[in-house]
Amino acid sequence: MQYARNAWYVAAWSEDLPASAPLACELLGEPLVLWRRADGTPVAFEDRCVHRLAPLSLGRCEGDLLRCMYHGIRFAADGVVSSIPGQDLIPAQARVRTYPVIERHDWLWVWPGDAALADPALIPPAVGLSDPDWILGHGQLDYAAEAALISDNLCDFSHLSYVHAQSFGAGPEFADNLPRVSPLPRGVRFERWLPVPADSPRNPHGEPVEAWQTYDYLLPGVLLMWSANYPQGTAEQLGGDAPAMSDALGGLSFTSQAVTPLGDGRARYFFSWGPHRRDGDAAKRDAMMAMAHQAFAEDKAMIEAQHARIATSRNPRIMPTAHDRGVTLYNRLVERLVAREITELETAT
Amino acid sequence: MQYARNAWYVAAWSEDLPASAPLACELLGEPLVLWRRADGTPVAFEDRCVHRLAPLSLGRCEGDLLRCMYHGIRFAADGVVSSIPGQDLIPAQARVRTYPVIERHDWLWVWPGDAALADPALIPPAVGLSDPDWILGHGQLDYAAEAALISDNLCDFSHLSYVHAQSFGAGPEFADNLPRVSPLPRGVRFERWLPVPADSPRNPHGEPVEAWQTYDYLLPGVLLMWSANYPQGTAEQLGGDAPAMSDALGGLSFTSQAVTPLGDGRARYFFSWGPHRRDGDAAKRDAMMAMAHQAFAEDKAMIEAQHARIATSRNPRIMPTAHDRGVTLYNRLVERLVAREITELETAT
Amino acid sequence: MQYARNAWYVAAWSEDLPASAPLACELLGEPLVLWRRADGTPVAFEDRCVHRLAPLSLGRCEGDLLRCMYHGIRFAADGVVSSIPGQDLIPAQARVRTYPVIERHDWLWVWPGDAALADPALIPPAVGLSDPDWILGHGQLDYAAEAALISDNLCDFSHLSYVHAQSFGAGPEFADNLPRVSPLPRGVRFERWLPVPADSPRNPHGEPVEAWQTYDYLLPGVLLMWSANYPQGTAEQLGGDAPAMSDALGGLSFTSQAVTPLGDGRARYFFSWGPHRRDGDAAKRDAMMAMAHQAFAEDKAMIEAQHARIATSRNPRIMPTAHDRGVTLYNRLVERLVAREITELETAT
Repeated sequence: MQYARNAWYVAAWSEDLPASAPLACELLGEPLVLWRRADGTPVAFEDRCVHRLAPLSLGRCEGDLLRCMYHGIRFAADGVVSSIPGQDLIPAQARVRTYPVIERHDWLWVWPGDAALADPALIPPAVGLSDPDWILGHGQLDYAAEAALISDNLCDFSHLSYVHAQSFGAGPEFADNLPRVSPLPRGVRFERWLPVPADSPRNPHGEPVEAWQTYDYLLPGVLLMWSANYPQGTAEQLGGDAPAMSDALGGLSFTSQAVTPLGDGRARYFFSWGPHRRDGDAAKRDAMMAMAHQAFAEDKAMIEAQHARIATSRNPRIMPTAHDRGVTLYNRLVERLVAREITELETAT
Repeated sequence: MQYARNAWYVAAWSEDLPASAPLACELLGEPLVLWRRADGTPVAFEDRCVHRLAPLSLGRCEGDLLRCMYHGIRFAADGVVSSIPGQDLIPAQARVRTYPVIERHDWLWVWPGDAALADPALIPPAVGLSDPDWILGHGQLDYAAEAALISDNLCDFSHLSYVHAQSFGAGPEFADNLPRVSPLPRGVRFERWLPVPADSPRNPHGEPVEAWQTYDYLLPGVLLMWSANYPQGTAEQLGGDAPAMSDALGGLSFTSQAVTPLGDGRARYFFSWGPHRRDGDAAKRDAMMAMAHQAFAEDKAMIEAQHARIATSRNPRIMPTAHDRGVTLYNRLVERLVAREITELETAT
Repeated sequence: MQYARNAWYVAAWSEDLPASAPLACELLGEPLVLWRRADGTPVAFEDRCVHRLAPLSLGRCEGDLLRCMYHGIRFAADGVVSSIPGQDLIPAQARVRTYPVIERHDWLWVWPGDAALADPALIPPAVGLSDPDWILGHGQLDYAAEAALISDNLCDFSHLSYVHAQSFGAGPEFADNLPRVSPLPRGVRFERWLPVPADSPRNPHGEPVEAWQTYDYLLPGVLLMWSANYPQGTAEQLGGDAPAMSDALGGLSFTSQAVTPLGDGRARYFFSWGPHRRDGDAAKRDAMMAMAHQAFAEDKAMIEAQHARIATSRNPRIMPTAHDRGVTLYNRLVERLVAREITELETAT
C-alpha cells in the first residue's frame, strides 16, 4: 500500500505524551519518538540514536535535551547532538532526523513528508477532547490490517446494516439507500437523511423524526462527522440538502476519527465521540462510547479477517459496487497525491 | 511439498458443520468455507467475497443462499452472486469458485482439483461414526508439520517400537520384523501377523494368540485398518496370508484416519477408532481412545520436531531403510499423480 | 553477522547435561545434541538423524551409543551408525557430523570449525563453579538479539553510567573516563582505576579506597574479569598499572561470562560471579547475583530494543565514539579471523 507523505497524521493523544518521558510511536514504517521540551512543546525524532541505533524512546528528558540512555549521548530539539560522554569533539553529521509536529485538538499531528511543505492549515478541523461545546469520550485500537482497509470501511457505511446490526442497531436503510457523495479538495463528503421511527431506541422525541448524518473523510485518513434529529418533513423541505446544526430537535453528536498507518499491515485507529453539551451529559457520552467500543470491535474483527485473506491471496482483485463511489473517490485522491510526490522526488533528485 | 489435487480430501467432520452457520477450513493452502443449503446439502466455496475479499465464513446462511456479512452480497450454491445491496445490476463475472463436496462416512470430502474428474467412487471406503457394526470414538489434531511427514509416519509402523513403547505398549516386534507390503491401484497395503503372549495386557484370551493387523494407506492420505486376534498357529496355517474377519477370536477393531494438508507446513489429522460391536462396548472404546490420544500426541511431538529440523536444514536428504518400502511406494504414487496433473494442465493450456 | 568458526564456544553448563539424557542446543545456526558416554565423556553431534532428520535430542542414551527414538537407528560416539532395525547392512555414508567438545571450568565448549585445528589450549581461562578459591553464583539469559551486539556492550562499560545507574549504582565515572585498552593475541584487555568514596554502598572499608577493575574480552565472546579494592594512593603509586591480586584490601571478585550466537538474531549469555573465598561468603554471593540479574535484565532490554531497531533500519550505520576503541579492536579481530577462515576454505577447495 502507498500512503501520502505530505500530510498530517495523528501520532498520539496529547495526554499520552507526559511532560518528562519520551513516547515511542510509529508512522509509515518509521520508528518515531515524541518528547516535550521544558516548556511542553512537542518534538518528534526518528527513534534511533546516531551512535549504535538504540531507541531514543528508552531515553531520558533533560530539560530541552533528550539523552540516549544506552551510552549517554544527548540531543537538542533540532536533532543535533549536543554532548558525547568521553569526548569533546562532536562530528558534524551527528544528528537525528526530526519531523514537524503540532499539538492541536488534543492530538499530536506529525508530518512525515517534506518539512518545507508542512502547512499547519492542512490539519483537519477535528474536535478536541477539551472543546467546550462537546462532551467527548475517546479510545484507540491497533489493527493487524492495512490502514487503507479501514479507510475503505469508513467511506462505505452500507456495512452498518450487516457488521453493526447488533451494536448500533442499524437497520437495512444504510445498505438499501446510497448517501450523497461529493468530492472535496482534500477528501470526500458524505450526506444522508435517515427516517427514525417513533419507537426506535435512538428516538427520544416521542414522534417520528428525520436524522441528518454527514461526514467528511479527509486526507490522510480523518473522519469528522456530526448528526442530529430534525422534525419530520425537513429533508423534503430542504430538497435533501444540509440543515443548520442549530435547527436540530436534539440528538446532536460529533465524532472525530483518525486512521494512522504504522507499518505494513498494521494501523492505529483513534476516535472520540459524544453529544453536544445541550443534548447530553457524561452518562449519555458513556452510553455512546460503550456502543462505539462494541461496534469498533466488530469492524476490527471483519477488517483483520479481510486483511489476512488479501495477504494470502495470489491475485487479489476487488469488484466495486454502487456503494463504493466514496471509497473510489477517496482512494483516487490518495493515488494522485502519492503519484505527485513520487514525481516531485524524481524531479528533485 | 506437492500433493495431488484430483483426490477427495477430508475437510471436516459432518457434525462440525451446523445446519445454519458457515465453517472456515483450509485445503492445500486455499481458504474454504463450508455451508449447508436449506435441505442440509453441503456446499464448498473459496472463502473470499468477490467484492472486497472478506471471508464468507463470517457470513450468514439464508436458506439456499450465503450472505457476506461485510456489505451484504449474497451467493447461490453454484457460487453465483444473487443480490448486491444498493444496485440492481449483477456483473457477469460475479461468482466465487466452488468445490465438489460429498458427505460420506460422517466426513465432508472436498475435491480441490478438476471438478470434471470428481468421481465419488474414488472416496476411500472409510468407516463412519454412525456405522452400526463399530463403536467408534474420534478426534482430530492440528500439526505444525507437512502432511507428507504424517503419511510417512503412517506408512512405517516400525516407529511403534520407539515412539509408542509407552502408550501402545509396543514391543520390539514392529521394528524387528518387516510387514508384507503390496501396491494397490490408489495406495499401499500393509499386512502382518504378530504374536501376543498370554500375559500381554492386550490379550484377554488367557492363552497366547496371534494378532492380524492390516491397513490400506490410500490417496490422498487415508489409513483404513482392522486388526483382530486368532488362535495360535493360524498364521502358519494360512501361510502368512490374511484371515477372514469373521474367524477372529476377539479383539476386532477398526480405525479410519485422514491426513489433510492445510497449507505449507500445516496439516490436520482426523481419526476414529473402536471395537467391533461384538468385541467391545463404549467403555472399551473410551479406553482405546485414551490410548490413541496419548499415542497421537507422541507422534505429533516427534513429527513437528522433525519438520522443524527439515525446515532449517540447508540440504535435507534422507537415507531410506528396509522399513521404508511402504513409504517409498506411497510417495512414488503421489509423485506420479502430481506429475500427470502437471502434464495435463500444460496440455490443456 | 559473521562469527569465527575456529573457536571454542560455550554450548552449555556441565550440570545441565545429565548422565543419561541428550540435550539439544544450537550454535551458529546449527542444531546440536550433546550427550554423555557411559564414562561421562561428552559427545557433540549435529542434531539430525541420517534416516529422516528427526532430532537425536529426542533420542535415548544407551551406554556408549545414542539411539534415535523415531525409528530406532543407533549411533556410536564417532557419529557412525551402529545398527538399523529391520536390516543388517549399514550404508557406508551412514554417519552424523560430530563436533569437538571439551568439558572445562564447568562449561561444555564446542568447536564448530575445522576439527583438525581444535586446540584445547585455546579455551579461555575461565573460572569454573567448582573452583576452590571463588564462591560463584551463575545463570544464563537468552537474547532475541545478535551475539555481536552483546559483545559490543561488554567491550564498552560507559553504558554502566546509564543502563545500570540503578542496579549497579554506577555513577558517571564509567562514562566520564576512558579505560586503558590494549590488544591481546585473541582479545582485548580493559583496565581502570576507580575512586570509591567512603560512603559508597560498595565500600565496606570505612575510608575512601580505590577499585581496580580489569577484564579480558576473548574470542569468541568470553569476558573474564576481576576487581578489588586498594588503599588510596595505590593507583598513583603504580603509575596506573595493575596491582597484585594478593595486595587487595578486600572486595575481590571474579566473573566469567560467555556470549554464544545461537542463530541469526538469537544468542545465549552465560555468566558466573562471586567473591573470593577470603572476601565473602554465600550470602555475599547471593547479594551480588541479585544485583547481576537486575543489571543483566537491563542490558537485555536495551540490546533487544537496539537489535529490533537495527533489523528494521534500511541502511543501519553507526557513529563510533571515543569509548568504542575496545569495541572496534575486538570486532576487527573477529573480522580478520573470519576473513582468514574464508580464504582457507577457498584455498582448500
